[in-house]
Amino acid sequence: CPLLSFLPPGKKVLIVYAHQEPNSFNGSLKRVAVEELSKQGCSVTVSDLYAMQFEPRATRNDIVGCLHNSEEFHYAVEMTEAYKRGCLSNDLTEEQEKVQEADLLIFQFPLYWFSMPAIMKGWMDRVLVQGFAHDFPNCYDSGLLKNKLALFSFTTGGSEEMYTKESMNGDIRYILWPMQV
Amino acid sequence: CPLLSFLPPGKKVLIVYAHQEPNSFNGSLKRVAVEELSKQGCSVTVSDLYAMQFEPRATRNDIVGCLHNSEEFHYAVEMTEAYKRGCLSNDLTEEQEKVQEADLLIFQFPLYWFSMPAIMKGWMDRVLVQGFAHDFPNCYDSGLLKNKLALFSFTTGGSEEMYTKESMNGDIRYILWPMQV
Repeated sequence: CPLLSFLPPGKKVLIVYAHQEPNSFNGSLKRVAVEELSKQGCSVTVSDLYAMQFEPRATRNDIVGCLHNSEEFHYAVEMTEAYKRGCLSNDLTEEQEKVQEADLLIFQFPLYWFSMPAIMKGWMDRVLVQGFAHDFPNCYDSGLLKNKLALFSFTTGGSEEMYTKESMNGDIRYILWPMQV
Repeated sequence: CPLLSFLPPGKKVLIVYAHQEPNSFNGSLKRVAVEELSKQGCSVTVSDLYAMQFEPRATRNDIVGCLHNSEEFHYAVEMTEAYKRGCLSNDLTEEQEKVQEADLLIFQFPLYWFSMPAIMKGWMDRVLVQGFAHDFPNCYDSGLLKNKLALFSFTTGGSEEMYTKESMNGDIRYILWPMQV
Protein backbone atom coordinates (compact mmCIF):
# COMPACT_ATOMS: atom_id res chain seq x y z
CA CYS A 1 0.00 0.00 0.00
CA PRO A 2 2.66 2.55 -1.04
CA LEU A 3 0.12 5.36 -1.30
CA LEU A 4 -0.25 5.29 2.45
CA SER A 5 3.43 4.98 3.26
CA PHE A 6 3.90 8.72 3.77
CA LEU A 7 2.50 8.35 7.28
CA PRO A 8 5.04 7.83 10.08
CA PRO A 9 4.32 4.92 12.48
CA GLY A 10 2.40 5.63 15.66
CA LYS A 11 -0.01 7.95 13.90
CA LYS A 12 -3.76 7.70 14.27
CA VAL A 13 -6.06 7.13 11.32
CA LEU A 14 -9.84 7.45 11.10
CA ILE A 15 -11.53 5.74 8.16
CA VAL A 16 -15.04 7.02 7.47
CA TYR A 17 -16.52 4.22 5.41
CA ALA A 18 -19.81 4.20 3.49
CA HIS A 19 -20.67 0.90 1.86
CA GLN A 20 -23.42 -1.57 2.69
CA GLU A 21 -21.53 -4.70 1.63
CA PRO A 22 -18.29 -5.93 3.29
CA ASN A 23 -17.46 -7.99 0.16
CA SER A 24 -17.60 -4.97 -2.15
CA PHE A 25 -14.58 -3.28 -3.73
CA ASN A 26 -15.03 -0.43 -1.26
CA GLY A 27 -15.09 -2.97 1.55
CA SER A 28 -11.83 -4.47 0.27
CA LEU A 29 -10.16 -1.08 0.00
CA LYS A 30 -11.17 -0.33 3.57
CA ARG A 31 -9.95 -3.72 4.82
CA VAL A 32 -6.60 -3.41 3.06
CA ALA A 33 -6.13 0.11 4.44
CA VAL A 34 -6.81 -1.11 7.99
CA GLU A 35 -4.42 -4.05 7.58
CA GLU A 36 -1.60 -2.11 5.95
CA LEU A 37 -1.77 0.89 8.24
CA SER A 38 -1.91 -1.33 11.32
CA LYS A 39 1.12 -3.27 10.03
CA GLN A 40 2.95 0.04 9.67
CA GLY A 41 2.30 0.81 13.32
CA CYS A 42 -0.64 3.17 12.93
CA SER A 43 -3.69 2.87 15.12
CA VAL A 44 -6.79 2.73 12.95
CA THR A 45 -10.41 3.48 13.83
CA VAL A 46 -13.27 2.85 11.39
CA SER A 47 -16.62 4.62 11.36
CA ASP A 48 -18.69 2.12 9.39
CA LEU A 49 -21.61 4.44 8.68
CA TYR A 50 -24.16 1.91 7.39
CA ALA A 51 -23.33 -0.58 10.17
CA MET A 52 -23.73 2.26 12.70
CA GLN A 53 -26.99 3.26 10.99
CA PHE A 54 -25.51 6.74 11.10
CA GLU A 55 -28.18 9.47 10.98
CA PRO A 56 -27.70 11.74 7.93
CA ARG A 57 -30.55 14.19 8.64
CA ALA A 58 -29.72 17.53 10.22
CA THR A 59 -32.50 18.02 12.77
CA ARG A 60 -33.36 19.41 16.15
CA ASN A 61 -32.43 16.01 17.65
CA ASP A 62 -28.76 16.87 17.17
CA ILE A 63 -29.08 19.30 20.07
CA VAL A 64 -29.63 17.91 23.58
CA GLY A 65 -31.85 20.08 25.78
CA CYS A 66 -33.06 23.59 25.11
CA LEU A 67 -32.54 25.47 21.88
CA HIS A 68 -30.76 28.79 21.63
CA ASN A 69 -33.77 30.13 19.70
CA SER A 70 -36.87 28.03 20.19
CA GLU A 71 -38.99 30.34 18.01
CA GLU A 72 -37.17 29.78 14.76
CA PHE A 73 -34.87 26.83 14.13
CA HIS A 74 -31.59 27.70 12.41
CA TYR A 75 -29.49 24.52 12.22
CA ALA A 76 -26.02 26.07 11.85
CA VAL A 77 -26.58 28.60 14.64
CA GLU A 78 -28.03 25.98 16.99
CA MET A 79 -25.17 23.56 16.30
CA THR A 80 -22.50 26.18 16.99
CA GLU A 81 -24.20 27.13 20.25
CA ALA A 82 -24.71 23.49 21.26
CA TYR A 83 -21.07 22.70 20.52
CA LYS A 84 -19.94 25.55 22.78
CA ARG A 85 -22.20 24.36 25.61
CA GLY A 86 -21.32 20.67 25.10
CA CYS A 87 -24.90 19.86 24.12
CA LEU A 88 -24.48 17.98 20.85
CA SER A 89 -26.04 14.51 20.60
CA ASN A 90 -23.78 11.59 21.58
CA ASP A 91 -23.28 10.24 18.07
CA LEU A 92 -21.81 13.58 17.01
CA THR A 93 -19.59 14.00 20.07
CA GLU A 94 -18.18 10.52 19.45
CA GLU A 95 -17.38 11.28 15.81
CA GLN A 96 -15.81 14.61 16.73
CA GLU A 97 -13.58 12.87 19.29
CA LYS A 98 -12.43 10.42 16.62
CA VAL A 99 -11.66 13.29 14.25
CA GLN A 100 -9.85 15.21 16.97
CA GLU A 101 -7.59 12.25 17.72
CA ALA A 102 -6.84 11.41 14.09
CA ASP A 103 -3.77 12.55 12.16
CA LEU A 104 -5.21 11.23 8.90
CA LEU A 105 -8.83 10.89 7.80
CA ILE A 106 -9.69 8.53 4.95
CA PHE A 107 -13.12 8.76 3.34
CA GLN A 108 -13.97 5.51 1.54
CA PHE A 109 -17.12 5.53 -0.60
CA PRO A 110 -18.69 4.84 -3.99
CA LEU A 111 -19.65 7.90 -6.05
CA TYR A 112 -23.46 8.31 -6.05
CA TRP A 113 -24.72 10.98 -8.45
CA PHE A 114 -21.31 12.63 -8.79
CA SER A 115 -20.80 13.03 -5.07
CA MET A 116 -20.64 11.06 -1.85
CA PRO A 117 -23.62 8.95 -0.72
CA ALA A 118 -26.15 10.77 1.48
CA ILE A 119 -25.07 8.88 4.59
CA MET A 120 -21.55 10.31 4.23
CA LYS A 121 -22.81 13.77 3.28
CA GLY A 122 -24.78 13.59 6.53
CA TRP A 123 -21.55 12.89 8.40
CA MET A 124 -20.07 16.08 6.89
CA ASP A 125 -23.21 18.14 7.52
CA ARG A 126 -23.59 17.07 11.16
CA VAL A 127 -20.08 16.39 12.48
CA LEU A 128 -18.15 19.33 10.99
CA VAL A 129 -19.78 21.97 13.16
CA GLN A 130 -18.70 25.60 13.20
CA GLY A 131 -16.55 26.00 16.31
CA PHE A 132 -15.18 22.48 15.87
CA ALA A 133 -14.02 22.32 12.24
CA HIS A 134 -13.80 26.03 11.48
CA ASP A 135 -14.69 29.33 13.06
CA PHE A 136 -14.76 32.31 10.77
CA PRO A 137 -12.36 33.74 9.75
CA ASN A 138 -10.56 30.49 10.62
CA CYS A 139 -11.31 28.21 7.72
CA TYR A 140 -9.42 26.52 4.89
CA ASP A 141 -5.67 26.97 5.59
CA SER A 142 -6.38 28.42 8.99
CA GLY A 143 -9.25 26.03 9.82
CA LEU A 144 -9.38 24.33 13.19
CA LEU A 145 -8.44 20.93 11.70
CA LYS A 146 -5.60 22.32 9.59
CA ASN A 147 -2.96 19.97 10.99
CA LYS A 148 -4.75 16.83 9.83
CA LEU A 149 -4.47 15.08 6.50
CA ALA A 150 -7.50 13.90 4.56
CA LEU A 151 -7.75 11.44 1.68
CA PHE A 152 -10.74 10.63 -0.49
CA SER A 153 -10.77 7.06 -1.78
CA PHE A 154 -13.76 6.36 -3.97
CA THR A 155 -15.06 4.15 -6.75
CA THR A 156 -16.86 5.54 -9.78
CA GLY A 157 -18.85 2.75 -11.39
CA GLY A 158 -17.50 4.01 -14.71
CA SER A 159 -14.27 3.99 -16.67
CA GLU A 160 -11.55 6.65 -16.60
CA GLU A 161 -12.59 7.84 -20.07
CA MET A 162 -16.02 8.81 -18.75
CA TYR A 163 -14.48 11.43 -16.48
CA THR A 164 -12.29 13.50 -18.82
CA LYS A 165 -12.94 17.10 -19.78
CA GLU A 166 -14.38 16.13 -23.18
CA SER A 167 -16.46 13.22 -21.95
CA MET A 168 -20.07 12.78 -20.94
CA ASN A 169 -19.56 13.33 -17.22
CA GLY A 170 -16.88 15.99 -17.46
CA ASP A 171 -13.52 16.25 -15.76
CA ILE A 172 -13.37 14.26 -12.53
CA ARG A 173 -11.79 17.36 -10.96
CA TYR A 174 -15.03 19.29 -11.51
CA ILE A 175 -16.84 16.60 -9.61
CA LEU A 176 -14.34 16.57 -6.77
CA TRP A 177 -14.28 20.34 -6.34
CA PRO A 178 -17.15 20.82 -3.87
CA MET A 179 -16.02 17.81 -1.83
CA GLN A 180 -12.46 19.01 -1.41
CA VAL A 181 -13.22 22.70 -0.82
CA CYS B 1 -42.51 35.71 -9.54
CA PRO B 2 -41.41 36.45 -13.10
CA LEU B 3 -38.73 33.76 -13.01
CA LEU B 4 -41.44 31.16 -12.98
CA SER B 5 -43.65 32.75 -15.59
CA PHE B 6 -42.21 30.69 -18.45
CA LEU B 7 -44.46 27.84 -17.42
CA PRO B 8 -47.83 27.64 -19.22
CA PRO B 9 -50.90 27.25 -16.97
CA GLY B 10 -52.17 23.76 -16.26
CA LYS B 11 -48.68 22.38 -15.82
CA LYS B 12 -47.67 20.25 -12.86
CA VAL B 13 -44.88 21.25 -10.51
CA LEU B 14 -43.10 19.21 -7.85
CA ILE B 15 -41.15 21.14 -5.22
CA VAL B 16 -38.61 19.03 -3.35
CA TYR B 17 -38.00 21.06 -0.24
CA ALA B 18 -35.32 20.58 2.41
CA HIS B 19 -35.52 22.95 5.35
CA GLN B 20 -36.43 22.25 8.96
CA GLU B 21 -38.03 25.64 9.66
CA PRO B 22 -41.16 26.94 7.89
CA ASN B 23 -40.23 30.52 8.86
CA SER B 24 -36.81 30.34 7.20
CA PHE B 25 -35.87 32.09 3.96
CA ASN B 26 -36.02 28.71 2.23
CA GLY B 27 -39.48 28.21 3.68
CA SER B 28 -40.58 31.59 2.34
CA LEU B 29 -39.19 30.86 -1.12
CA LYS B 30 -41.09 27.58 -1.14
CA ARG B 31 -44.31 29.23 0.05
CA VAL B 32 -44.09 32.01 -2.54
CA ALA B 33 -43.43 29.48 -5.29
CA VAL B 34 -46.50 27.45 -4.28
CA GLU B 35 -48.68 30.57 -4.13
CA GLU B 36 -47.48 32.10 -7.40
CA LEU B 37 -47.55 28.92 -9.41
CA SER B 38 -50.99 28.02 -8.11
CA LYS B 39 -52.21 31.52 -9.02
CA GLN B 40 -50.89 30.97 -12.53
CA GLY B 41 -52.95 27.81 -12.83
CA CYS B 42 -50.29 25.23 -12.14
CA SER B 43 -50.92 22.33 -9.82
CA VAL B 44 -48.19 22.16 -7.22
CA THR B 45 -47.06 19.24 -5.05
CA VAL B 46 -44.48 19.64 -2.28
CA SER B 47 -42.22 16.92 -0.92
CA ASP B 48 -41.28 18.43 2.43
CA LEU B 49 -38.38 16.10 3.17
CA TYR B 50 -37.81 16.93 6.85
CA ALA B 51 -41.54 16.88 7.62
CA MET B 52 -41.77 13.49 5.87
CA GLN B 53 -38.71 12.33 7.81
CA PHE B 54 -37.49 11.19 4.42
CA GLU B 55 -34.92 8.37 4.66
CA PRO B 56 -31.60 9.39 3.06
CA ARG B 57 -29.73 6.09 3.57
CA ALA B 58 -29.46 3.72 0.62
CA THR B 59 -30.05 0.33 2.18
CA ARG B 60 -31.52 -3.10 1.63
CA ASN B 61 -34.81 -1.75 3.05
CA ASP B 62 -35.39 0.06 -0.25
CA ILE B 63 -36.17 -3.30 -1.83
CA VAL B 64 -39.33 -5.14 -0.82
CA GLY B 65 -38.96 -8.93 -0.72
CA CYS B 66 -36.13 -11.02 -2.05
CA LEU B 67 -32.90 -9.64 -3.39
CA HIS B 68 -31.61 -10.31 -6.89
CA ASN B 69 -28.30 -11.37 -5.34
CA SER B 70 -28.60 -12.23 -1.67
CA GLU B 71 -24.91 -13.18 -1.40
CA GLU B 72 -23.46 -9.78 -2.14
CA PHE B 73 -25.44 -6.57 -1.90
CA HIS B 74 -24.94 -4.14 -4.79
CA TYR B 75 -27.29 -1.21 -4.28
CA ALA B 76 -27.50 0.07 -7.87
CA VAL B 77 -28.05 -3.40 -9.33
CA GLU B 78 -30.66 -4.32 -6.73
CA MET B 79 -32.53 -1.04 -7.26
CA THR B 80 -32.67 -1.44 -11.03
CA GLU B 81 -33.97 -5.00 -10.63
CA ALA B 82 -36.47 -3.98 -7.95
CA TYR B 83 -37.73 -1.12 -10.12
CA LYS B 84 -38.35 -3.52 -13.02
CA ARG B 85 -40.24 -5.93 -10.76
CA GLY B 86 -42.18 -3.14 -8.98
CA CYS B 87 -40.50 -4.01 -5.68
CA LEU B 88 -39.23 -0.63 -4.51
CA SER B 89 -40.28 0.55 -1.06
CA ASN B 90 -43.44 2.68 -0.92
CA ASP B 91 -41.71 5.97 -0.12
CA LEU B 92 -39.69 5.65 -3.32
CA THR B 93 -42.61 4.63 -5.51
CA GLU B 94 -44.55 7.65 -4.26
CA GLU B 95 -41.72 10.03 -5.06
CA GLN B 96 -41.23 8.50 -8.50
CA GLU B 97 -44.93 8.96 -9.24
CA LYS B 98 -44.68 12.62 -8.28
CA VAL B 99 -41.64 13.04 -10.55
CA GLN B 100 -43.36 11.21 -13.39
CA GLU B 101 -46.37 13.52 -13.22
CA ALA B 102 -44.37 16.73 -12.93
CA ASP B 103 -43.48 19.02 -15.84
CA LEU B 104 -41.18 21.09 -13.63
CA LEU B 105 -39.16 20.06 -10.58
CA ILE B 106 -37.95 22.72 -8.16
CA PHE B 107 -35.31 21.81 -5.59
CA GLN B 108 -35.37 24.26 -2.69
CA PHE B 109 -32.54 23.98 -0.15
CA PRO B 110 -29.76 25.71 1.76
CA LEU B 111 -26.21 24.89 0.66
CA TYR B 112 -24.53 22.63 3.25
CA TRP B 113 -20.80 22.10 2.68
CA PHE B 114 -20.98 23.27 -0.95
CA SER B 115 -23.76 20.89 -1.91
CA MET B 116 -27.30 19.94 -1.01
CA PRO B 117 -28.15 18.74 2.53
CA ALA B 118 -27.84 14.97 3.06
CA ILE B 119 -31.63 14.53 3.22
CA MET B 120 -31.93 15.87 -0.35
CA LYS B 121 -28.86 13.97 -1.56
CA GLY B 122 -30.65 10.89 -0.24
CA TRP B 123 -33.68 11.77 -2.36
CA MET B 124 -31.41 11.85 -5.43
CA ASP B 125 -29.57 8.65 -4.48
CA ARG B 126 -32.74 6.65 -3.77
CA VAL B 127 -35.44 8.03 -6.09
CA LEU B 128 -33.47 8.46 -9.33
CA VAL B 129 -33.08 4.76 -10.01
CA GLN B 130 -31.58 3.38 -13.21
CA GLY B 131 -34.52 2.27 -15.34
CA PHE B 132 -36.60 5.18 -14.03
CA ALA B 133 -34.41 8.27 -14.51
CA HIS B 134 -31.92 6.91 -17.03
CA ASP B 135 -31.00 3.64 -18.63
CA PHE B 136 -27.66 3.48 -20.36
CA PRO B 137 -27.05 4.67 -23.00
CA ASN B 138 -30.11 6.81 -22.31
CA CYS B 139 -28.87 9.51 -20.02
CA TYR B 140 -28.39 13.29 -20.07
CA ASP B 141 -30.09 14.61 -23.26
CA SER B 142 -31.60 11.22 -23.96
CA GLY B 143 -32.40 10.42 -20.31
CA LEU B 144 -35.81 9.06 -19.40
CA LEU B 145 -36.85 12.35 -17.74
CA LYS B 146 -35.61 14.51 -20.61
CA ASN B 147 -38.93 16.27 -21.19
CA LYS B 148 -39.06 17.74 -17.71
CA LEU B 149 -37.59 21.01 -16.50
CA ALA B 150 -35.62 21.28 -13.29
CA LEU B 151 -34.68 24.34 -11.26
CA PHE B 152 -32.33 24.59 -8.28
CA SER B 153 -33.26 27.32 -5.82
CA PHE B 154 -30.85 27.52 -2.93
CA THR B 155 -29.46 29.84 -0.29
CA THR B 156 -25.73 30.13 0.42
CA GLY B 157 -25.26 31.61 3.86
CA GLY B 158 -22.61 33.83 2.28
CA SER B 159 -22.39 36.85 0.03
CA GLU B 160 -22.07 36.83 -3.76
CA GLU B 161 -18.40 37.90 -3.47
CA MET B 162 -17.57 34.68 -1.62
CA TYR B 163 -18.47 32.63 -4.68
CA THR B 164 -16.44 34.21 -7.48
CA LYS B 165 -13.53 32.57 -9.25
CA GLU B 166 -10.95 34.55 -7.25
CA SER B 167 -12.65 34.19 -3.88
CA MET B 168 -12.27 31.84 -0.95
CA ASN B 169 -14.95 29.37 -2.00
CA GLY B 170 -14.36 29.53 -5.74
CA ASP B 171 -16.78 30.07 -8.58
CA ILE B 172 -20.34 29.10 -7.68
CA ARG B 173 -20.45 27.25 -11.01
CA TYR B 174 -17.77 24.85 -9.79
CA ILE B 175 -19.96 24.08 -6.82
CA LEU B 176 -23.04 23.59 -8.93
CA TRP B 177 -21.37 21.32 -11.46
CA PRO B 178 -21.88 17.93 -9.81
CA MET B 179 -25.45 18.79 -8.87
CA GLN B 180 -26.48 19.80 -12.39
CA VAL B 181 -24.65 17.02 -14.24
